[in-house]
Amino acid sequence: MGEQTRQDQASPEVRERIRASFERQGLMAHLGARITHIAPGRVHIVLPSRPELTQQHGYFHAGATSAIADTAGGYAAYTLFPDNTEVLTVEYKINLLAPATGDHLEAVGTVLKSGRTLTVCQLEVFGVGSERRTLVANGQQTLIRVARPER
Amino acid sequence: MGEQTRQDQASPEVRERIRASFERQGLMAHLGARITHIAPGRVHIVLPSRPELTQQHGYFHAGATSAIADTAGGYAAYTLFPDNTEVLTVEYKINLLAPATGDHLEAVGTVLKSGRTLTVCQLEVFGVGSERRTLVANGQQTLIRVARPER
Amino acid sequence: MGEQTRQDQASPEVRERIRASFERQGLMAHLGARITHIAPGRVHIVLPSRPELTQQHGYFHAGATSAIADTAGGYAAYTLFPDNTEVLTVEYKINLLAPATGDHLEAVGTVLKSGRTLTVCQLEVFGVGSERRTLVANGQQTLIRVARPER
Amino acid sequence: MGEQTRQDQASPEVRERIRASFERQGLMAHLGARITHIAPGRVHIVLPSRPELTQQHGYFHAGATSAIADTAGGYAAYTLFPDNTEVLTVEYKINLLAPATGDHLEAVGTVLKSGRTLTVCQLEVFGVGSERRTLVANGQQTLIRVARPER
Repeated sequence: MGEQTRQDQASPEVRERIRASFERQGLMAHLGARITHIAPGRVHIVLPSRPELTQQHGYFHAGATSAIADTAGGYAAYTLFPDNTEVLTVEYKINLLAPATGDHLEAVGTVLKSGRTLTVCQLEVFGVGSERRTLVANGQQTLIRVARPER
Repeated sequence: MGEQTRQDQASPEVRERIRASFERQGLMAHLGARITHIAPGRVHIVLPSRPELTQQHGYFHAGATSAIADTAGGYAAYTLFPDNTEVLTVEYKINLLAPATGDHLEAVGTVLKSGRTLTVCQLEVFGVGSERRTLVANGQQTLIRVARPER
Repeated sequence: MGEQTRQDQASPEVRERIRASFERQGLMAHLGARITHIAPGRVHIVLPSRPELTQQHGYFHAGATSAIADTAGGYAAYTLFPDNTEVLTVEYKINLLAPATGDHLEAVGTVLKSGRTLTVCQLEVFGVGSERRTLVANGQQTLIRVARPER
Repeated sequence: MGEQTRQDQASPEVRERIRASFERQGLMAHLGARITHIAPGRVHIVLPSRPELTQQHGYFHAGATSAIADTAGGYAAYTLFPDNTEVLTVEYKINLLAPATGDHLEAVGTVLKSGRTLTVCQLEVFGVGSERRTLVANGQQTLIRVARPER
């Protein structure tokens, strides 16, 4: 992430809003995922390898891969939404391109098209080891902006 | 499940093969999921509600919903495969139709078309409470049969 | 279609609205497609075989299969919309399960979930010959309801 | 296309094989589509505007948009296949991002991952007018390589 400068980052308000939302996600903590980058229209999430995340052959389970991909896309969309709104995933499609291995996975969600109601994101997940970074999953996601309920 | 008779079940050999594979999935145990029904071309997986599975509004996270949907479809395909083969998810698409709430989720994977190389499954996830059962997600999945590696 | 009674049909107003919209679709006429059934939440479209619809092996082209599947789903959603609204396809996913052959294709669009803004449909396409009817494609589609522009 | 040099093109043999296959597709001729670029892992298809391609509001029909997207992806995969093989679409998913308007559409299929059995492509469709080029659809496609049947 060293090549990313401060200008690549979303505003402190947006980053704070997203980090606060992320921390309310029980699943992300349970999996061990963390947000590592929040830029306008782009969010990165990292998930370190552990036995609790495997499928039957010892690779990362597609459910873990998908969970961080979906979350990265959702927050990428959310960086472009106004205050007092929420983001919900409408649907996504994901291709599992290669066995998901590595020291950690890195999911990158990127906004392709941001509309008033619907946003479409590209989802990429990389398996990252000491010597290589492999695209292990690629997907496309549709999200909807909704008004935040009164509290 | 009371309405399902013994004839609905896959053979003991197939059920044993699938339960053994399921138990090797670290993620399913970590989430708290269990297989509740294994029929030819159809598998059910149940996931009880717990705070470790939530998204930011307290519902089941789409990643948890998807993880059991993908797994149910994968094993539904696997019930129809010969011995000495393995199943891999090629891709899936899932629509999140309603907030995923309830005492537990139940994912149902059903084979739509079983080919020599590729299998296509329907994925359904229900939110189940004491008084109702709501379809919360619906999807479609492509799987590939591969030869089991020699050990 | 003999087993379908008059009660299966949408109201005359809805059927008229949909037939009028269908007739404005240049592509449907160019392909030779026609609407054969309009029920609440379900629409059938038939496409007779002709050389102008083939891919390189002489089967129906996936583009023709998809075009009638998308249209059947769109109008299935539209049967449930109020007057003064329009329907737009947000996205769809389709699996091509078998070579699309037969005297004609029949696409069936069925509403799975109808919401205020978004509707989700199941898409099925059958290849129909004198002696059999084969599921050749299966898909899932998301649609959005928009206000009809003033004229 | 002016920026593309001869080196961007596939070999004459591959281009000939793809053009011959394209010409056997009745649907592409019926729609008025033509292949404009064949590079290793990338194919462009152009579809000029005409009333026979419209949906009910006068835009390009999603079926036309999808037909050229699917075809561009299929031939992009095929550029990387050995002789004596064929390509079949397993499935695709497409988001319709904006009204498809313009003097013509241009579909670009690009291979994301080429495997021995399966290939995954990105699909993009642009609406092109005298002054702008807009991304109107974006998708993802899975294809399978099969042996060419003996003749």
